[in-house]
Amino acid sequence: MPDFQQTVGVVGAGTFGTAIANLLSRRVDVLLYSRNPDTVERINRERQNFGINLSPRINAIGNVQELVEKCTLIFPVVPSDGFRSTMTRLGPHLRPYHILIHGTKGFDVQGITPAQMDEGLLEPQHVSTMSQVITQETVVRRVGCLSGPNLATEILEGQPTATVIGSVYEEVIELGKKVLSSDAFHVFGNNDILGAELAGALKNIIAIGSGILRGRGLGKNLQAMLITRGLMEMARFGQAMGSTNSAFFGTAGIGDLVATATSKNSRNFTFGFRLGKGEKMADIEATMPELAEGVRTLKITWHLANYYKLRLPITQMLYNIVFDGYNIDKAIKFLITYPYDVDVDF
Amino acid sequence: MPDFQQTVGVVGAGTFGTAIANLLSRRVDVLLYSRNPDTVERINRERQNFGINLSPRINAIGNVQELVEKCTLIFPVVPSDGFRSTMTRLGPHLRPYHILIHGTKGFDVQGITPAQMDEGLLEPQHVSTMSQVITQETVVRRVGCLSGPNLATEILEGQPTATVIGSVYEEVIELGKKVLSSDAFHVFGNNDILGAELAGALKNIIAIGSGILRGRGLGKNLQAMLITRGLMEMARFGQAMGSTNSAFFGTAGIGDLVATATSKNSRNFTFGFRLGKGEKMADIEATMPELAEGVRTLKITWHLANYYKLRLPITQMLYNIVFDGYNIDKAIKFLITYPYDVDVDF
Repeated sequence: MPDFQQTVGVVGAGTFGTAIANLLSRRVDVLLYSRNPDTVERINRERQNFGINLSPRINAIGNVQELVEKCTLIFPVVPSDGFRSTMTRLGPHLRPYHILIHGTKGFDVQGITPAQMDEGLLEPQHVSTMSQVITQETVVRRVGCLSGPNLATEILEGQPTATVIGSVYEEVIELGKKVLSSDAFHVFGNNDILGAELAGALKNIIAIGSGILRGRGLGKNLQAMLITRGLMEMARFGQAMGSTNSAFFGTAGIGDLVATATSKNSRNFTFGFRLGKGEKMADIEATMPELAEGVRTLKITWHLANYYKLRLPITQMLYNIVFDGYNIDKAIKFLITYPYDVDVDF
Repeated sequence: MPDFQQTVGVVGAGTFGTAIANLLSRRVDVLLYSRNPDTVERINRERQNFGINLSPRINAIGNVQELVEKCTLIFPVVPSDGFRSTMTRLGPHLRPYHILIHGTKGFDVQGITPAQMDEGLLEPQHVSTMSQVITQETVVRRVGCLSGPNLATEILEGQPTATVIGSVYEEVIELGKKVLSSDAFHVFGNNDILGAELAGALKNIIAIGSGILRGRGLGKNLQAMLITRGLMEMARFGQAMGSTNSAFFGTAGIGDLVATATSKNSRNFTFGFRLGKGEKMADIEATMPELAEGVRTLKITWHLANYYKLRLPITQMLYNIVFDGYNIDKAIKFLITYPYDVDVDF
């Protein structure tokens, strides 16, 4: 079994993967995996990525087997719609002693076609979080997730922040703390990994809403209300999926939600902002190289909420706006005059 | 007993008092009280305040007795350090049938000199919330408070938002909803009035901290962490004072905190921003016509936390920065490396 303190792996050389690699390189050697040979070659030649200098302790590699043999601890950080295929590629090489802490915020959908989903046939059995994908596709059981206010661009700039490692295994949390903690990065632990994953995914929906409000020229009061009530919906949806409230009201929930929904740098916020300015969904899709993760999460969440018969008025209105072109001002009025039972309902 | 549906009173013609008067004027006639005769005369002549046109249903008056005789329902909205004297002025005229819903966020201190406070002699018995001041100084018992993301400038512009009426009396909440609700203003209720008042006061401390971070050029990730952990400290302090958690995790807590701590328009944020830019406390005091409410709240909260032997690391660091000139970067490092027990501790 390789020693985790020697070399830690990161799968995915996007902005967040690169940010994690840089944080890790303060403590350990890092192997940064990309399946694109050109990216591997370029990173090792230029010694930088996204304009940020990489620590000498980081090396890019393109060989899965080498990565898995050299690293016990691996951080998969790839988009949610490519996560399962990444795990099937790593799976044959992984052993039960491996520890995987992923940093991917979104859902995996399997066993249903897009057309069937549009017919309203999505059920919870079709939807997995990334930690569930790991245990489905590999023999690894000691799994964790990273969740928190972790805008990658700020971490790359060296700005301080905090994160949560969600895991049922204390040893996974402790190990993550050991390799990631510094005086610019605080690592909390939370045993509700499902809650931490759901909070990280669902907050992208609310970030779209926040962008819409800003695009309509609306102010901080209403944005704060969207965040407050949006958090309630996130927690209520989480309860239906089996999570506790604890993750939603900490770093993975409030923390991530506030950062993402108030930052103009987030793709989800930008998508909403353009909707709020009056652009059509199709035009935005045509000009955004990668669609905002929250759009996909919104659709999946809306279908599951219908399955559970949950009333989530913000999610409902956002679905109507994004997928049915519903009038934004009418949606805002609907939400303000909605007969909420109580202020706090968790 | 006068009919509340005829005329409602507002005490204090500042920005928030004026905003409340404008919201009320959609449903009822409003008497807007100022103790300054020039202000009364000017408002009635110009029909506007802070550049905002007033509804024809609003009239300014300077006569306390007339106000109290014509209005059963009165909204006191004056700064916390003048709240008690306002209540002693209204007190002799108020009757048990009056209903007071205040909109003042801060503490009242009585029975101790500033010098004694600096010696560490402040105890809970010296500190009152505004609803407690009302019941101390008047015969009124049906008391409520307004708390939520209610930046006055945005409400004056007609921007939509929501608020909470905190009151142990359902009839007070229902009455407040009746006169304030509209399709641009949602009114929630919460029976934990103490929690709603404390959340509204304590969030100003965190807003100072948020301004400091921005002044230091720090980003959204850290601001979101300050808000997340700040909320935990607010709730923990509230527990010591006897409130529940419910208000802190709803509109009066998260909602108000997010709006205030992310808005550049708040006096508390501005005070912190200038500290973060390197200005000295004395210079800021000299150029701010009215000191930020949060500075006073910070001092009182810090002393009470000492009395309760609570560990509130953010409050402690802010006290050190504001009152002892402690180095900001050292304070941030202290907070990031602080050995927090858990992520969520309520």
